[in-house]
Amino acid sequence: MIIITRASITDAELDAIRERIEQRGMRTHLSRGVERTIIGCIGDESLLAELPLRSMPGVEDVVPVLKPYKLASREFAAAPSVVRVGDDPSRPGRVAAFGGPAIAIIAGPCSVEGPDMLRETAEAVRDAGGVMLRGGAFKPRTSPYAFQGLGATALKMLADVRRTTGMPVVTEVMDPRQIDDVAEHADMLQVGARNMQNFSLLSELGRVKRPVLLKRGLSATIKELLMAAEYIMAQGNRDVVLCERGIRTFEVATRNTLDVAALDGFRELMRRLAPFAAAAGRSLGASADGARAGAAA
Amino acid sequence: MIIITRASITDAELDAIRERIEQRGMRTHLSRGVERTIIGCIGDESLLAELPLRSMPGVEDVVPVLKPYKLASREFAAAPSVVRVGDDPSRPGRVAAFGGPAIAIIAGPCSVEGPDMLRETAEAVRDAGGVMLRGGAFKPRTSPYAFQGLGATALKMLADVRRTTGMPVVTEVMDPRQIDDVAEHADMLQVGARNMQNFSLLSELGRVKRPVLLKRGLSATIKELLMAAEYIMAQGNRDVVLCERGIRTFEVATRNTLDVAALDGFRELMRRLAPFAAAAGRSLGASADGARAGAAA
Amino acid sequence: MIIITRASITDAELDAIRERIEQRGMRTHLSRGVERTIIGCIGDESLLAELPLRSMPGVEDVVPVLKPYKLASREFAAAPSVVRVGDDPSRPGRVAAFGGPAIAIIAGPCSVEGPDMLRETAEAVRDAGGVMLRGGAFKPRTSPYAFQGLGATALKMLADVRRTTGMPVVTEVMDPRQIDDVAEHADMLQVGARNMQNFSLLSELGRVKRPVLLKRGLSATIKELLMAAEYIMAQGNRDVVLCERGIRTFEVATRNTLDVAALDGFRELMRRLAPFAAAAGRSLGASADGARAGAAA
Amino acid sequence: MIIITRASITDAELDAIRERIEQRGMRTHLSRGVERTIIGCIGDESLLAELPLRSMPGVEDVVPVLKPYKLASREFAAAPSVVRVGDDPSRPGRVAAFGGPAIAIIAGPCSVEGPDMLRETAEAVRDAGGVMLRGGAFKPRTSPYAFQGLGATALKMLADVRRTTGMPVVTEVMDPRQIDDVAEHADMLQVGARNMQNFSLLSELGRVKRPVLLKRGLSATIKELLMAAEYIMAQGNRDVVLCERGIRTFEVATRNTLDVAALDGFRELMRRLAPFAAAAGRSLGASADGARAGAAA
Repeated sequence: MIIITRASITDAELDAIRERIEQRGMRTHLSRGVERTIIGCIGDESLLAELPLRSMPGVEDVVPVLKPYKLASREFAAAPSVVRVGDDPSRPGRVAAFGGPAIAIIAGPCSVEGPDMLRETAEAVRDAGGVMLRGGAFKPRTSPYAFQGLGATALKMLADVRRTTGMPVVTEVMDPRQIDDVAEHADMLQVGARNMQNFSLLSELGRVKRPVLLKRGLSATIKELLMAAEYIMAQGNRDVVLCERGIRTFEVATRNTLDVAALDGFRELMRRLAPFAAAAGRSLGASADGARAGAAA
Repeated sequence: MIIITRASITDAELDAIRERIEQRGMRTHLSRGVERTIIGCIGDESLLAELPLRSMPGVEDVVPVLKPYKLASREFAAAPSVVRVGDDPSRPGRVAAFGGPAIAIIAGPCSVEGPDMLRETAEAVRDAGGVMLRGGAFKPRTSPYAFQGLGATALKMLADVRRTTGMPVVTEVMDPRQIDDVAEHADMLQVGARNMQNFSLLSELGRVKRPVLLKRGLSATIKELLMAAEYIMAQGNRDVVLCERGIRTFEVATRNTLDVAALDGFRELMRRLAPFAAAAGRSLGASADGARAGAAA
Repeated sequence: MIIITRASITDAELDAIRERIEQRGMRTHLSRGVERTIIGCIGDESLLAELPLRSMPGVEDVVPVLKPYKLASREFAAAPSVVRVGDDPSRPGRVAAFGGPAIAIIAGPCSVEGPDMLRETAEAVRDAGGVMLRGGAFKPRTSPYAFQGLGATALKMLADVRRTTGMPVVTEVMDPRQIDDVAEHADMLQVGARNMQNFSLLSELGRVKRPVLLKRGLSATIKELLMAAEYIMAQGNRDVVLCERGIRTFEVATRNTLDVAALDGFRELMRRLAPFAAAAGRSLGASADGARAGAAA
Repeated sequence: MIIITRASITDAELDAIRERIEQRGMRTHLSRGVERTIIGCIGDESLLAELPLRSMPGVEDVVPVLKPYKLASREFAAAPSVVRVGDDPSRPGRVAAFGGPAIAIIAGPCSVEGPDMLRETAEAVRDAGGVMLRGGAFKPRTSPYAFQGLGATALKMLADVRRTTGMPVVTEVMDPRQIDDVAEHADMLQVGARNMQNFSLLSELGRVKRPVLLKRGLSATIKELLMAAEYIMAQGNRDVVLCERGIRTFEVATRNTLDVAALDGFRELMRRLAPFAAAAGRSLGASADGARAGAAA
């Protein structure tokens, strides 16, 4: 951590800052410039987490040096990892791999509406080269009066179509109390954009033995997305796939703006969660109707 | 609902659209302009919720006429309502009123850190004219490694300080499984910005007999905030107070941008949830340190 | 234009609105719904431009039906047009076409720094399949102390390299007083993102006999970009190429967010200015250094 | 300037970076942490402006220490300055002061529409305590087909009403070629939000002997606004008043979001241009009609 001081800082203020930091077990290092003095803090930055450094007299700015996402960071990892979905001996079927050389495509209906429609879609997705079926059982809807999904009934349909077609399935979980049931029926658990910072849900997903597809919140920075992944990984579940799905901007001609550069950002920053998928349907049009009509993810 | 057609629409396409709408039990009404034909849909708009109107051939745009938040809307209400917090005969103490002529101020520490600090703060808030104490027991933190609050221990401290000082208390709830415990100890339950569209949590709060303080999500539109309130109200709990706490914009000099016009927007749009409160601390500076140091909400 | 009235509108208010509209020479058409009355306005919408309809008693919302960009709209055009750059008999050389079936690539240095560097870059761009050379002579720089470009000297270097290599050249114009000079030396005139709504500049460019490359402002909506094109076209110059170059969002990990959906939006909305180009360099990284080092546009 | 290096940096890379910096006449200072090495650069930061530091091998991040707006910064100034408008011996009348203890209110019509309306408004503004009249002569309009203002005729009306009422007047200038004429008739020249980064216009205004009212661009950061002020000041004109007028965000319920915290940011950051004014009319409603109807700025 680096502390940039104001031009007007006094020696007493400078000493007070150093003393607070050194009390926490870190060393400090002064670098006096022409107009400013810089305080370098050497040691474990987390020791300073609770110190109100920015509000101390004489402080202009505080610049963290280390990334706060230790598990999600690629920094100290030799290679990007690959997340395998459906690789469960108790459940025969295909395995989908994210993060490897092949582009993995997930597709399926927004909501599961019935067994026939679901099976036909799964076969169409498989025949078109898709590696996984998605389908909503619990639907996060902006209005309490809109259709909320078929719930437990849809979970059973998803498990059935996996058995029939061999395609692994992913579906959204919205509530910690649904996790066990969803994990029993699906191969991968999806966290929707609105729940990206539902920390209770994330922590619980860290205790599950299934990979998680984590969608970026509609105004989440890449760093916040990685911190959300860190929540899951910190509890032991290292199989997280990040999903760029478009962010909210001032532009109203489209519902969301797909942040293509984020995909590159993920690659640069991620360690064990290297894989990603872009949910293009929502970002490429103002209407949700198109996404519902087709089989696009 | 009004449907604006493309200049190039054919009579067959026009008939097909009308037929789909009338099958749902609504009437249609044509208005032919110089270059466009407008279809007015008369009847209950919710009947059209599942129709993919925007993707039908010949459709240019679809304009809803009625507001989707029926309970939260002020439109058909005679007067703004007042939400009373702490008005529980089994718990003697003060009552805080939101939505009436007086400005109601909530203040208290970001996190509850101990009983003495909490009692002293409560007394200071009361003596300064505040009507309610806030204090975090469960803290939503961006990092899984940051202090997450004292949890159940803090809830007990909040209930104790209410008994001692008579000040009603509000604290955040992050998980449906915490609701009963929080409702037992606090007078009002707060939904944080990150959980504004945690629909499972909102629905459960609709079944609670305590008022809810609903904070605006950092990139939620006013309409989405009202829809979130509608989730709570649709389950029976009409005592919702909205809280503008700053939105996320491109500006990085401050953490959030307080949307002062939103307060006016709330007044214009709301019915039963007329009250509001602005959490200014977070919006007025780049650092959270200031908010933690003082007693500001 | 459609006027949606409030539920509480009186007959007198309704009559007053209709009277104001009909005085301007338009017809009105009532559509009474269960809770609302809709007023359709039939005729030339521009007649209503100066009427403060939104603030009239009883009005809830005003929805325009026709697009305000008549020349830029594709609506009444049979086919997208193609803009040809460098097609000037007095200047032998190659011709670059935008809007046709081939993807046209423009490349070159951010700033023209010298004749050798420019000629080598032009040859490299040409050999790599690029159709036009760009190079900055007048540079819009955020700081008044930064290098502002070589100005008139750079214009001459651009004209020289066109003669030598046959490659048409595009360069930015920042001031109406520079237009004649830039048009004499370059084949296409570029409007930078910061000047997208510099209406004096746009109007003057409408009188020039050279195509214009119009870059999207960093927080301009697609509609505003089309209105800026309309400014140029309304003065007689129909050869406008739109350029998506990334928009400003809350995300700070990258300098801009390339709005890929906008390219599709351009195609949908545009008429004579169908062509476009995406300046990817700026959108794909937080630093400008990369863009300066390479020959990428 | 501080350079944060990657964990993987080699000694050769470290030496190469230091060498490049020291060649420019600055000193460097190493601070080795547990996982990172920090390079402090001591001396005049502007010497490094053209170095592509971020793209050098081993560099993780570059943090500037000094503010790039030297004239606009308050940092080395003893007190905020006061800008006086109308203080011209050749023109008797009132003087408006910005930046002093009193709140200065500017008001007037969006567009000058006629002499009577203007004189009546000026008297109303004066009687209500306003210190300056505004009125648009040249209007920046999104559509080329909208009313563009009365131009030179309106300038004369503004000068006339100043003589009659003694109220200083401010009006917008959109083109460098209009500056002389506007400066002759008005007491203060306004730069509109769309032209905040029209650097040709800003530079010319730096040579004028009249104060400038600089409106914040709709997606300009506070830092960019200060850099725009720096453009004017660098040419010799130190009388710049900044105007917060609302920024563009995702929220569509209002046209702009007034960034109230920016006013505080101005105070913190500014030196000679301490004064400011907030154009509230545009930020507090979705419609421009209200602003046109009243006398609000």
